[in-house]
Formats: sequence, structure tokens, C-alpha cells
Amino acid sequence: MHILVLGGAGMVGRKFIERLARDGGLGGKPVTRVTAQDVVPASPPPAAPFDFEAVVSDLSVEGAAETLIATRPELIVHLAAIVSGEAEADFDKGYRINLDGTRYLFEAIRRIEGYTPRLVFTSSVAVFGAPFHDKIEDEFFTTPLTSYGTQKAIGELLLCDYSRRGFFDGVGIRLPTICVRPGKPNKAASGFFSNIIREPLNGEEAVLPVSDQVRHWHASPRSAVGFLVHAATMDTTKIGPRRALTMPGYSCTVAEQIETLRKVAGENVVKRIKRVPDPVIDGIVAGWPRNFDPQRALALGFKAESNFEEIIRVHIEDELHGTFVK
Amino acid sequence: MHILVLGGAGMVGRKFIERLARDGGLGGKPVTRVTAQDVVPASPPPAAPFDFEAVVSDLSVEGAAETLIATRPELIVHLAAIVSGEAEADFDKGYRINLDGTRYLFEAIRRIEGYTPRLVFTSSVAVFGAPFHDKIEDEFFTTPLTSYGTQKAIGELLLCDYSRRGFFDGVGIRLPTICVRPGKPNKAASGFFSNIIREPLNGEEAVLPVSDQVRHWHASPRSAVGFLVHAATMDTTKIGPRRALTMPGYSCTVAEQIETLRKVAGENVVKRIKRVPDPVIDGIVAGWPRNFDPQRALALGFKAESNFEEIIRVHIEDELHGTFVK
Repeated sequence: MHILVLGGAGMVGRKFIERLARDGGLGGKPVTRVTAQDVVPASPPPAAPFDFEAVVSDLSVEGAAETLIATRPELIVHLAAIVSGEAEADFDKGYRINLDGTRYLFEAIRRIEGYTPRLVFTSSVAVFGAPFHDKIEDEFFTTPLTSYGTQKAIGELLLCDYSRRGFFDGVGIRLPTICVRPGKPNKAASGFFSNIIREPLNGEEAVLPVSDQVRHWHASPRSAVGFLVHAATMDTTKIGPRRALTMPGYSCTVAEQIETLRKVAGENVVKRIKRVPDPVIDGIVAGWPRNFDPQRALALGFKAESNFEEIIRVHIEDELHGTFVK
Repeated sequence: MHILVLGGAGMVGRKFIERLARDGGLGGKPVTRVTAQDVVPASPPPAAPFDFEAVVSDLSVEGAAETLIATRPELIVHLAAIVSGEAEADFDKGYRINLDGTRYLFEAIRRIEGYTPRLVFTSSVAVFGAPFHDKIEDEFFTTPLTSYGTQKAIGELLLCDYSRRGFFDGVGIRLPTICVRPGKPNKAASGFFSNIIREPLNGEEAVLPVSDQVRHWHASPRSAVGFLVHAATMDTTKIGPRRALTMPGYSCTVAEQIETLRKVAGENVVKRIKRVPDPVIDGIVAGWPRNFDPQRALALGFKAESNFEEIIRVHIEDELHGTFVK
């Protein structure tokens, strides 16, 4: 089985490819080849039992998609995107990559007669825009308040139409905020949800810019990879034409995050969180969804953590070799 | 005031321009010029008190939109579209006109510094796909089951994002089925809703291919024009970022349509309806929305008929000079 991962150098893409390397196969089939496309070279996973190729290309250039699918990968995982902040700052670039790039890919597949790969498209809860219900249902409308959310919602619509037409077999998954995101603190407005766990466990201070009562929707990087694996292997005859699914996650307040960190890692670790209120971040976060009722995804077999302790323990296991700075 | 009507040779475009000619102005401002673009030449309205220009062009050709807006019309009414059946039969053509054409227009406006016209975009209840609630609420999700519906839903998303960014001042209106549609019977699956009223009033037979119990969502051509006028002149500060609105209409069964025709026009007229069940049309119609609860549009001042008798009387007044074949 040949798998093409678009955006394969990003965090989720890298972890997905690492899991393929560990598992050796996907859905009972051996993986023989993985192509990881991105704008920077993706690193090969350790000890891969398959051929690995990193391709550096720009999906928004006509012809790039054709080249990538010339060998007809059976599975395409489309993670490539300009992130929310950049798509808002650079209108042209966001539409060029997130909309045109996605459409070029879909069109390239459609134009190959008899080629109908499974296509997993990562979307986002940014397709929803405030005001919304405290717990957003599967039938709630998508009214994004960012260009990124607009581009993802359009991608979902195209995914459904191309799948309905039989051009490919698409599954769209709306990822929760990934927590605990590994790596360095970044400038994303949502960064603190991870920073306040990751940095203290590393012996570093972390800044909490919002109130303890802020509620948010989380899943671990391990769950995100699990969503991709399930979307890639599930029986899509059970989905029907509504192929964009809100993934499961765990909703909790910052206070619960901190209490759980205290329980798992102790008071000394929690003391490394510094409260520095930032009204700008507070305002941004107020417009984000807090909780979902993802019944369809759960019924279709998608799984995430069911409490925040699991999310912290996954981070300690997967990123910290089971230990942390006490 | 200069008004540009895209798709100006179609039934709704023509009636909108005729109303402008009758009213002489729009929202208290005199109309000085109307440009009607379409793929065929639009006819001038009778006795127009403004300059009228018919432009034949293809919106899906790059540069066509730039030419049309070079004179900066203050109001753009975008009715141009490949209809449902054709967009389903010809995938490329539907996306080229309904998606690319719309995007070229939006982009052309965005690229003119300081130009932010009012833009009225006609969408459709085809953005909804079965199964849905008996009465579809304003917050129900858009899961189209046709390429046409997909293209309209994407147009709505773009309209909201471009408006949010301040590139233009957009209002998207989802039209009900227009009844009684003037002209000859056509092959549209929805044609019979109008045929069973229009043809008997003309002394002609009409075929009813579905059960009397089929329920549907109607508004008159006069109401459709009223929606355009209101969308063109309303205070958009009251809409907020959710600029795609389900228009009001009247929901009734075919049985109620026929009973009302009997009341208005008598038994002889009703006898001209022939029941010829067609399981194919029955199947198509079963997937259509039957009723809506368009609270937002009503609160924003959009108005339609509140019973089917009004719809028939509007047809007799506007199309038949107040009379019919008894």
C-alpha cells in the first residue's frame, strides 16, 4: 500500500508517519511506500519498514498535485494548510493554498479515470463561528469568522460533492485543539492550553493569559493520529453523504487542566504557571467553541481521551519518556 | 445610482429591472443606469427612466468581471448561474460558472481599492440536503446533495468572508421555489408546481406527476423581486456576519394548491389538471425541503405571501392582466 501525506512535515503528519512505521501496516495491509509532501523536507521516520520519500512542492502551483498522484497512492492524507493566523494576515496566500491547493488536488484525482483513492481531509472546529450553543451538535451550521475557517468549510463541501460523485472516497475530520502540543511555545493564541502543561513538566515557567474559567475542547496528538488511522481504514458506506465529521474530544476548563496537572505532577510543577492576564487573547478565546456533542463520529468509531489526566499521561509517555521535572 | 445585474436576461433579473423602471429609483435614490449582463442579450424594460445597457459576456472568463465593474456600480445583483440540472449533468461547467465565475467577481471587486458596493447574491434552498427537519431552522447545517447546491453554499461562505473583510457589503438570499413561474412548461423536476396553476388558467392541460400530499415551499416572482429590492436597500449593520438568509415563503401541499385554484378560478379550471404519476419525479421531490422557519429574514424585514391564494392572485394580476380562461 502506497500512502501520500500532504503536509507530511508538520507535527500531526510526522506522528502519523511514525505510527505507520511502528505498525508496519494500515487496516491489515502492509504499507510499502510513504510519500511525504510539504514545503520543507519531511524527515524519514525511525526504522521505517517501507520506502520513504520526502517531496518538497507547493500544492497551489498547477501541476504539483498531478505529479504527486502520478503513481496512484491508494490513500491520500491531506493535512497541508496555511494556519489560521497566517490565512487571516495574508488573504491571497490563505485562499491560494487552502482553497486552490485543495481544489487542484481534488481535480487531479477526478481527472484520472478509474482512480478513486481514500482521501482523508483535516478540517477544523474553526468552521464554526460564535455565537453557538454551549455544546455544538452535529447539525449546527458552519458560519466561520475567519478566512481559514471559510476555506476549511469550503474544503468540506467540495470533499462531500466529489465523494458523492464517486471521484474519490473522502472523509473530513474536524480536529479539536491538539493538547499537549509538543515543541516550543509558539505565538498561536491557543498556545497556552498546551504551554501551561508542557513547560512546567519541562521545569520551565509558562504564562496563563486567560481566566481559569475558560473552557476548551482538547484531544492529544496520539488521538489525532488515531483519527487519521480510523478515517483511512473505516467502512465509508456507513457515513452517507455527510462526510465532514466533528471529532470527539474532551471539554474542560483551564482550572481542571491545572488541577489535573497538580494531581499527576504535584504542586511544584503547578507553581511554574504564571498568571499574566492578556485581554487580547481573552477576547480571541471568547469566540471559540467550548464543547461539542460529536455523536456521529462516536457512532462511527472515532475515539479520543475521556478525561484530562489521560491527555497529560499521553504527553508524558509519548514526549517525555515517562518522566518530568518535579 | 448605477446598478449591475448579472444574469439580467433571466426571469427574476428581467422582473427586477422592470420594477426599477416602474419605481424609477431604489431606496429613495434615483436609478440613472442599469447594466444587464447575461450570456444572451437582455431586453430593455418598457419605458425605462434610466440608461439601459445589455452586455453579453461569460463571467467564467477571467477579466469579464473587471470589465463589468470598471464603472463601479453602487449595487451588484448576482443572479447568474447554471441551474441545478445542468450543473449536475456538466460538472465542469457548473463549477466554472457557479464557483469560478462568482469568485472572479468577488476578487475583481476586492482588487479595487476603496470600492465596496452592496452585493446581492441569490442562493437556493438546494444548500440543504435530506434528511432534514420538517421545518428547517436558520441554524440548520448546509449539506447539499447536488453540485449546484454545493456551489451555492460555497458562494455563501465566500460572500460572508469577503463581507467580513470589508471588500463589499454582501447579502445572500436563498430563494424558495418561484411559483407561479411565468412562461412555458419546462423540464425542471419542480416545474409542475407552477404548471398545475399556470396552464389551467391559460385553458391548457397540465400534468401532475406526484401525490396531492407532496408539500413544498413557494414564493411568487413578485416576492422574489421584493427580496432583491430589500436586500439591496436594507441596513446591513443589523445582519452581522451571517449574511446568507433563508427567505420567507409559504409552505403548502399540492392538495392545498389545487383547492385554492378551485376557490379562485372554479371547477372547470381545476379539471384541466391530469394526474400522471411519475415515480422518478416523485423520488426527486422526496429529497427536497418542505418547510422553513426563516425567523432571521422575517426579523430583518423580508416579506412573502402568507397563503397560496395570494400567490395565484399575483400571477393573475402580473401575468394575465387580471383575467384567465374559465
